[in-house]
Amino acid sequence: MNPPHPHTPTLPYSLEYARELDRQDPLAHFRDEFVIDDPDLIYLDGNSLGRLPRRTAARLREVVEGEWGKRLIRGWGEGWFTASQRVGGKIARLLGARADEVIVADSTSVNFFKLVMAALAAKPDRRKVVTDDLNFPSDLYLLQGALRLAGADYRLERVHSEDGLTVSGEALAATVDGGTALVTLTHTAFKSGYVYDLGAITEMAHRAGAWMLWDLSHSAGAMPLKLNEANVDLAVGCTYKYLNGGPGAPAFLYVRKDLQEKLLNPIWGWFGQKAQFDMKLDYEPGPGIQRFLAGTPTMLSLAAVEPGVDLLLEAGMDRLRAKSVRQTEYLIALWQALLQPLGVTLNSPRDSNRRGSHVSLGHPEGLRIDRALIEDMNVIPDFRYPDNIRLGVAPLYTSFADLHEAVMRLRRVIVERLYEKYPTERPEVT
Amino acid sequence: MNPPHPHTPTLPYSLEYARELDRQDPLAHFRDEFVIDDPDLIYLDGNSLGRLPRRTAARLREVVEGEWGKRLIRGWGEGWFTASQRVGGKIARLLGARADEVIVADSTSVNFFKLVMAALAAKPDRRKVVTDDLNFPSDLYLLQGALRLAGADYRLERVHSEDGLTVSGEALAATVDGGTALVTLTHTAFKSGYVYDLGAITEMAHRAGAWMLWDLSHSAGAMPLKLNEANVDLAVGCTYKYLNGGPGAPAFLYVRKDLQEKLLNPIWGWFGQKAQFDMKLDYEPGPGIQRFLAGTPTMLSLAAVEPGVDLLLEAGMDRLRAKSVRQTEYLIALWQALLQPLGVTLNSPRDSNRRGSHVSLGHPEGLRIDRALIEDMNVIPDFRYPDNIRLGVAPLYTSFADLHEAVMRLRRVIVERLYEKYPTERPEVT
Repeated sequence: MNPPHPHTPTLPYSLEYARELDRQDPLAHFRDEFVIDDPDLIYLDGNSLGRLPRRTAARLREVVEGEWGKRLIRGWGEGWFTASQRVGGKIARLLGARADEVIVADSTSVNFFKLVMAALAAKPDRRKVVTDDLNFPSDLYLLQGALRLAGADYRLERVHSEDGLTVSGEALAATVDGGTALVTLTHTAFKSGYVYDLGAITEMAHRAGAWMLWDLSHSAGAMPLKLNEANVDLAVGCTYKYLNGGPGAPAFLYVRKDLQEKLLNPIWGWFGQKAQFDMKLDYEPGPGIQRFLAGTPTMLSLAAVEPGVDLLLEAGMDRLRAKSVRQTEYLIALWQALLQPLGVTLNSPRDSNRRGSHVSLGHPEGLRIDRALIEDMNVIPDFRYPDNIRLGVAPLYTSFADLHEAVMRLRRVIVERLYEKYPTERPEVT
Repeated sequence: MNPPHPHTPTLPYSLEYARELDRQDPLAHFRDEFVIDDPDLIYLDGNSLGRLPRRTAARLREVVEGEWGKRLIRGWGEGWFTASQRVGGKIARLLGARADEVIVADSTSVNFFKLVMAALAAKPDRRKVVTDDLNFPSDLYLLQGALRLAGADYRLERVHSEDGLTVSGEALAATVDGGTALVTLTHTAFKSGYVYDLGAITEMAHRAGAWMLWDLSHSAGAMPLKLNEANVDLAVGCTYKYLNGGPGAPAFLYVRKDLQEKLLNPIWGWFGQKAQFDMKLDYEPGPGIQRFLAGTPTMLSLAAVEPGVDLLLEAGMDRLRAKSVRQTEYLIALWQALLQPLGVTLNSPRDSNRRGSHVSLGHPEGLRIDRALIEDMNVIPDFRYPDNIRLGVAPLYTSFADLHEAVMRLRRVIVERLYEKYPTERPEVT
């Protein structure tokens, strides 16, 4: 652990040390932009659902009570119609893309389906799709469904991760060939936080003549991305994690400019139609990125996305990434000193270049420890099978003191065996 | 026009008469459930975007500031996960369906796509889909896209409406045959308000061995529906019109119980997966209606749907329909006395059994008249090409006095030629 300042206290595992890191943090004041009603709660699940920005609460009152309530249908002409593209244009800046390459609408699942189907139709002579088994299960399901629709001669190859943590570029390259239409991966793996080399993998896919579709759900808002620089073809991602867009917030979809009019959205809804209010009876896809819209966007949920994106732009993705790296390194240092001796493993990469903004810790009793943290310790991480306790760092609002306190409480749960009163099975979500 | 009460004033075209009808209206108090900030505004576009219920404004503050802001990720276990099915179960009561036959999620477009693809896959020996050209254009586009995906030997037959107002059951029946997989129609036509006989058309489709998919967007919340009684196979509809769910609110999807496990959603997202948090790598569709979910539902927009549905259930669909019929009949009587002499045509059926809850009036200057109503007269109808001014009646909050005043203002626009200052072309929506 490298102390960021020469006068940092010399007790690196003390709360005072964490507080000093917070005092030196140039982004610390962004925490005040969020609703934090319980100061004792340590919230480390911003990688699953980001906190509520104060200005989002205000914006939603305005869009509900002011726009819908007072302007009624006129709201569509006063900003709603363009919201998918306006908010997409802002997210583009987080992704290193052009404003006219990104929209926000539908769910990540629906957007992923659209792009897979569009890509397969545009490369009819190639019948293979390559992915890996670190990918988010929903993407795997969607691929299976899309390939089933595409035809019996399509096949999915899923590169296996030997350690459950990483897949090498070489293993992928060995699977991608001249029959591959599409390579699709989650950029930051949801379990381990492993981050692929976006430029190198995209280039590898291109060498084989395949397109590259990235799921950026665990990357967007956590690190700067350079889609244009890497010449990425296609991408999707969700806005309710590091973008703080709210539960189930609509997702983003990126299509590189020169591909937009070569591809067809399989879902021919009226928001993708050229001049939709002409109400013509035959579909004619709209120009550019608009054609990837389908139905009417969920305006309230969409409006909630914008203020969180503005906050990320104000803080700057380079600064946020620098803080995120400092914080995950700090967390790993605490793990090494305080948790590894108790049998907790590190299930995330140690190399910060290959690590996203969450740290996964493993323990055979992970499920019950997670439950004890939530119910008895006022710490919210999350849990992913078989044994991963994910600690998410959201550099806009996570403090170093949060991380210190979380490790102390986690340590207490293990040392005092506070988890033993909980069942070993996960309760059914009903 | 039949006065509803023997002591009704004898001047049926007076404002006093309209006010007397309001005094006799047993549902009049429901108007107080809505945010009405400008009492002079006559809002007749509830068929496009319903008004904001007061309790929805309160519910959204709670879900944003209370649930998201304070409960954070825990919100999923405290009601969010089940919201698609819970709200769907309530809408089922408006549709005459079982609670476990309806969900709310995604847009009408995406849901329509899901059901068309599912139906075609389940009837692989039939390659024809029948619809009409009164259908909402988005449905026609989606059908064209779906059939293109299904294969080159699929075809769409679009029964032509001779008068732009209706299509007879006989014309449809002549097109539906043993090669027809699916008949799909909009139950209440978006332009004319013409209402198909849901039972008779469904039965006709079934006689040919086809399934029936209804788009109920302009019917749900405007009239009682009896999907189970008519043995309807499939249906979709939107919640932002008569259900007052807010701009772009997520749509509903109905699949008859016995068909649910025979059909496959083409979009294999994780919310449709059996036991989604087991995070297995292979798709296994969830039981029953759950399999028609795809990605994470937009929770804020979904939460906004529920209070509006509750209001409809409290008022009762039979009473609402009775009021709606009284109101559209009153409007037609006013048209006949006051507008027909000015060259305004009635573009909706005169038979209330075949008319939904909006009345379309035609005039060659309809586009400019619509604009003058909005900009100069504080009346909001909407306009649909080529010449339809749609006056929507939302019986939860539209008053008879609203209708009287709208006709008076419309009359003034025509008599005083107030529309002439507006361009004859619709402005681009940007």
